Amino acid sequence: MFKKPVNKTSGSSSVRIVPLGGLDEIGKNITAIEYNNEIVVIDCGIAFPDDSMLGVDVVIPDFTYLKKNKNKIKGVVITHGHEDHIGGLPYLLKEINVPIYGSKLAIGLVENKLREHKIINTVKRNSVKPGSIIKLGGMKVEFIRTTHSIADAFAIAIHTPEGVVLHSGDFKVDYTPIHGDMIDLHRFAELGKKGVLAFLCESTNVERAGYTKSESTIGPTFEDIFIKSRDSRIMIATFASNIDRVQQVITQAHKNNRKVAVVGRSMVNVVKIASELGYLNVPKGIMVEISEVQKMKPEEVVVIMTGSQGEPMAALSRMANGSHRQLEVIPGDTIVLSSTPIPGNESSVNTVINELIRRGADVVLEDTHVSGHACREEIKLLHSLVKPKYFVPVHGEFRHLKAHAELAQELGMNRKNIFVSTIGDVIEVSKDKARKAKSVEAGRVLVDGLGVGDVGNVVLRDRKHLSEDGLIVAVVTVDSKNNKIVGKPELVSRGFVYVKESEELLREAKDVVNKAIEGLDKNRIKEWSYVKNEVKDKLSDYLWRKTKRSPMILPIIVEV
Amino acid sequence: MFKKPVNKTSGSSSVRIVPLGGLDEIGKNITAIEYNNEIVVIDCGIAFPDDSMLGVDVVIPDFTYLKKNKNKIKGVVITHGHEDHIGGLPYLLKEINVPIYGSKLAIGLVENKLREHKIINTVKRNSVKPGSIIKLGGMKVEFIRTTHSIADAFAIAIHTPEGVVLHSGDFKVDYTPIHGDMIDLHRFAELGKKGVLAFLCESTNVERAGYTKSESTIGPTFEDIFIKSRDSRIMIATFASNIDRVQQVITQAHKNNRKVAVVGRSMVNVVKIASELGYLNVPKGIMVEISEVQKMKPEEVVVIMTGSQGEPMAALSRMANGSHRQLEVIPGDTIVLSSTPIPGNESSVNTVINELIRRGADVVLEDTHVSGHACREEIKLLHSLVKPKYFVPVHGEFRHLKAHAELAQELGMNRKNIFVSTIGDVIEVSKDKARKAKSVEAGRVLVDGLGVGDVGNVVLRDRKHLSEDGLIVAVVTVDSKNNKIVGKPELVSRGFVYVKESEELLREAKDVVNKAIEGLDKNRIKEWSYVKNEVKDKLSDYLWRKTKRSPMILPIIVEV
Repeated sequence: MFKKPVNKTSGSSSVRIVPLGGLDEIGKNITAIEYNNEIVVIDCGIAFPDDSMLGVDVVIPDFTYLKKNKNKIKGVVITHGHEDHIGGLPYLLKEINVPIYGSKLAIGLVENKLREHKIINTVKRNSVKPGSIIKLGGMKVEFIRTTHSIADAFAIAIHTPEGVVLHSGDFKVDYTPIHGDMIDLHRFAELGKKGVLAFLCESTNVERAGYTKSESTIGPTFEDIFIKSRDSRIMIATFASNIDRVQQVITQAHKNNRKVAVVGRSMVNVVKIASELGYLNVPKGIMVEISEVQKMKPEEVVVIMTGSQGEPMAALSRMANGSHRQLEVIPGDTIVLSSTPIPGNESSVNTVINELIRRGADVVLEDTHVSGHACREEIKLLHSLVKPKYFVPVHGEFRHLKAHAELAQELGMNRKNIFVSTIGDVIEVSKDKARKAKSVEAGRVLVDGLGVGDVGNVVLRDRKHLSEDGLIVAVVTVDSKNNKIVGKPELVSRGFVYVKESEELLREAKDVVNKAIEGLDKNRIKEWSYVKNEVKDKLSDYLWRKTKRSPMILPIIVEV
Repeated sequence: MFKKPVNKTSGSSSVRIVPLGGLDEIGKNITAIEYNNEIVVIDCGIAFPDDSMLGVDVVIPDFTYLKKNKNKIKGVVITHGHEDHIGGLPYLLKEINVPIYGSKLAIGLVENKLREHKIINTVKRNSVKPGSIIKLGGMKVEFIRTTHSIADAFAIAIHTPEGVVLHSGDFKVDYTPIHGDMIDLHRFAELGKKGVLAFLCESTNVERAGYTKSESTIGPTFEDIFIKSRDSRIMIATFASNIDRVQQVITQAHKNNRKVAVVGRSMVNVVKIASELGYLNVPKGIMVEISEVQKMKPEEVVVIMTGSQGEPMAALSRMANGSHRQLEVIPGDTIVLSSTPIPGNESSVNTVINELIRRGADVVLEDTHVSGHACREEIKLLHSLVKPKYFVPVHGEFRHLKAHAELAQELGMNRKNIFVSTIGDVIEVSKDKARKAKSVEAGRVLVDGLGVGDVGNVVLRDRKHLSEDGLIVAVVTVDSKNNKIVGKPELVSRGFVYVKESEELLREAKDVVNKAIEGLDKNRIKEWSYVKNEVKDKLSDYLWRKTKRSPMILPIIVEV
């Protein structure tokens, strides 16, 4: 058998694929590609907290592995400017200052974040064009044009002496995109012909049959809405980052002689950046300030806004519940939700819809959104062009990765060449073999306010407990000289019962604490944990018996 | 104009329709029909708590209006045995002991609840057959057979001298139901011909075009699954109350020589009651205990279980996370989720699916569920047969009620004869007119453990605050004789930061409290609210600056 030359520093010449986020989960996409003691990082996103992460703002990847290998990292390359691909960058770049590479738009959006985090002056940013190839250490990184729900999305091919590792990024096969050219199928075909060593392909819509519709199918729907709602104000809520959607609204507004107002912080930001960088074609004089809108006639204006996911602080929600300072729903308004609720947001979106209808708006939901992700037939197309030797399904929960692996098998791939993995797994590939190597540290870090990582399982468990049954603080005063309890215990409760209507219960609870104290072993009064546990157990028993609830009980001993 | 004879006791001879639950909301369906100082109550259900009702178990209607009119109530009539129609009965019957009327199955399910609430011996229960008419005071109540996702569902016609008030209950038009006959369209037609004064019709699926499929279309799907999974264990999760679904599983099991095990408390309960009352056809010897299942060969058994909504304590979830004491997923198991996630449950269901697939199960989701509610064409059919004079859309959020009103208008109804209402609204109808009268008290009462109504907005606000940022208790000791603060303040935190890793922050926080105390106006130390507010404000400012979080701060003053 042919023996590979052993590389002195790394111990082997294989390419290491190290997914650190986005596998067996949704969001916080990040992957390290490692060759010959050099690392290129692809993307660095955030995820949104799930229901169990009470009070958490965002979730970022655990960077332990990258921090340990800080000196090997040559740069971060960005597939596109969505939060789940760039949102974690400021946190990473604060720890490890390396150059970043991405499309003009993605870099523009990242710069906004770097400014907020006050590291704009220390980070080197590089815009790259679709089709361009850069050298990062010994690896060559190629940015291949794809199509997605944000302009200038890239797949990334990393050329190493062992072969090409190709990462699809997020993509759909859109033959008629709004901005720029179609996905560069020719280049995928060319790479496939030459041979792709390993293919990392996104799995978001792998359970959906058929094809995802083109972004440009939305135009005619908008056109119909503008005709039907000729005499009404039209307000369209969508994702701020979906610049092509925004473009289509502006185009329709222009055709119909309406002005456009942009509402919502992130929408204003993105529209500003996209206009400056030439991704949005904004006819002169079409934009008006939000403060103008209430003064204009209904048929003169279109509002583009955030809040299509029912986010409570976004423009649409505030308008729905009547708390928006500058915009009020007028009966007859046509309000379009140009989006699909992300799983978990269904209830909030539903609440917003009900409120808008109650205020007399005509809410339009149908045919005003298309996905940005490839369905099965598109995924099959890419697999068939790329014909990889090894395949790693990425970007998806376990069910998606599994379904994607099965799709690859249907196309004829050998099961042994497919690596259904989770974050922290390491897949070592070389010309003639691939294997799972020893895994590395990976996980999630919770961001709450300014705190990064200071909220973990203990804190979340306490928050959950507090959220369900509230708490009772029981204050016991101990005379430490004479080793005895003095005075009566104090009870304070929050989130447990409505105190004014439960006076008797709380009075009895005090008696229970009192009795617990009287029953203490006098010789053990200096053992605080003993005193605390007695108070806790007795009170907890009593409350459970009386209410079938278990508030958190916090015994506090004050020494005098 | 023709003047109506004035009734001495009520002041008018109109029928009062008083919806007390289920309008502009999902669940807790309850409606009072009032004529000549007598009341018949239709249904009394629960709703499930939404995300804002932290720690709440169930939501029941506010019974104030019924309690105030206790002596007028002649009885409660039940449309069918689902929780959102019967779950609130024990709470109502504890307050107002009146006889209840419903199908044998509904009464059987209610009796189970009355037993749990220990009021089985005091409540009069009456089973009625489809087509039967009973007299409640001056009103005649007719139970009309419909079809729904539970056997023996009724529409209810209340005959009064002013005319007929018809309530659809929950229904679909199923021409081939599993148990019993099809919906009694003849009777609806007959009533329509004679004239229906007011129609209350459910609105759940009014936004869906077309027809809901028959329950019996599930049979062939199950048949296919049994053939394809010939060598595997088959486990089917569905709603316990969907007895027809359970019947179809048993039928297939029998055909395929498999035994059946029933798992999950509510599933075991319902199957027991339904078998005893003759709603389930269970071949002799087919049932086995759950303890037998792990010993049997895969091809010998089918398990029917609860948990299709991802409920964390149900059988399926516990099996998915490996904590079920008697059942373990074996690679190759076929697990069928014969249900659709109820809005809000999507994430939990998704988590369960991922875990099951991870353990090697083959999870089947498609074509194994049909709705129990009528879609637009069925609703149109009922409207067209009933041809009511006045119409009140019921059972649905505002968007559904509105859409249902529009559907009625499309069918030719005059907008003035349609009453889109909310709970507490009163619609007075008589032969020749209808109007909204003065509304009555209505709302929601939260049940948490044994507490009914002791959790309200204050408690929920505290729970939400605690769930997001936790709390800090600051204990300050005051020497009340000498009017001064003694010793150092104590801080205890829960759910705020991980204490072991935030020692510095908490030490500084203590200093902040200390300084706040030192800065107090010595003359005002006996004003506890002053001391508390100073501590709270200073600590709160400091923590926001340092962490951008706002834990609940509980200053406690101990007097010595």
